[in-house]
Amino acid sequence: MEDRLKKQLDFALEIDKEKNIFRQTHLSGNGRNENDAEHAWHMAIMAYLLREHSNQQVDIGKVMLMCLIHDIVEIDAGDTYAYDAENLKTQKAREDAAKERIFSLLPEDQKNELIALFDEFEAYETAESKFAHSMDNLQPLILNNSNGGNDWREHGVTAAQVRGRQDKTKLGSEKLFEVVDDIIKENIRKGNIKE
Amino acid sequence: MEDRLKKQLDFALEIDKEKNIFRQTHLSGNGRNENDAEHAWHMAIMAYLLREHSNQQVDIGKVMLMCLIHDIVEIDAGDTYAYDAENLKTQKAREDAAKERIFSLLPEDQKNELIALFDEFEAYETAESKFAHSMDNLQPLILNNSNGGNDWREHGVTAAQVRGRQDKTKLGSEKLFEVVDDIIKENIRKGNIKE
Repeated sequence: MEDRLKKQLDFALEIDKEKNIFRQTHLSGNGRNENDAEHAWHMAIMAYLLREHSNQQVDIGKVMLMCLIHDIVEIDAGDTYAYDAENLKTQKAREDAAKERIFSLLPEDQKNELIALFDEFEAYETAESKFAHSMDNLQPLILNNSNGGNDWREHGVTAAQVRGRQDKTKLGSEKLFEVVDDIIKENIRKGNIKE
Repeated sequence: MEDRLKKQLDFALEIDKEKNIFRQTHLSGNGRNENDAEHAWHMAIMAYLLREHSNQQVDIGKVMLMCLIHDIVEIDAGDTYAYDAENLKTQKAREDAAKERIFSLLPEDQKNELIALFDEFEAYETAESKFAHSMDNLQPLILNNSNGGNDWREHGVTAAQVRGRQDKTKLGSEKLFEVVDDIIKENIRKGNIKE
């Protein structure tokens, strides 16, 4: 087998490990914890179906690919819960090391392409990045909301914490932020999110 | 919330159930059974990275979306193992009913779009469908091969059965079929696939 194809297949096998990286979010129906691969799959489909609600025109293929690969670094760096202040401090260093190791399995051009896409997602500047982040925020919110806000209650999450994260959802979609805002208000009212 | 957006979000929540549909394939590292959402995520990324090996030029965004949604019907119809002759007989009827119920949650235009894409995948005629099927075949093969062919051994799968399925991989990619063929031959030699 030629070297280029071997590298592509080695990378394909390596990212299988993302299915073992579990998040704090639980599946609907009060299911088990969700893993990163499932989360990414869900985000990519949602991005496609909800793209009309993006504030700006987006290259939807790019958004989908961004969604699919944005958590690959967590194979080494682990999942960092959105409201875990301590782990958030070291997140960037852990993810940078992971990014270099894992994407280096690919041929050089594809390594560079996926790192650029990952960096674009992280930088939160382009229309595609903003909309992908809206999916990253909306997807766990609808699962958690469907489970009566159990994930927020379990972690004693406050309205300020949820708003700190979800306010950025509006950078990608004002329309979807309205939905998010309604869900947050309802869960504060029900006591699932602390005031 | 307007009706169109509500339908889109209802569908988004419904497809969460695909994460509970488990396949016969095991994750690398002799892990647990893989589920459909993880399989679809993996296929979509592989399609993107391996697209240069497609026999024909493909619209890669379309291939990726096809990969992401091709197993949604299994939420109702369940996974049908590729070598389970009995269940294969009823697969189409079960999947047709599922397709109608699940995609009907979407706004009409998106329902029609996703059903057309699903049908295109199933019909195995377009370049995109053929390449997506190559991923559907290659992805579990590399996992199974990495696990010493345990899935084939467990089910007593024969070379004729594997070839019956994998021969179609070459319709999408002659190049990737060479890899598949080498893996099959090696696993026959090792006794993991019965002659």
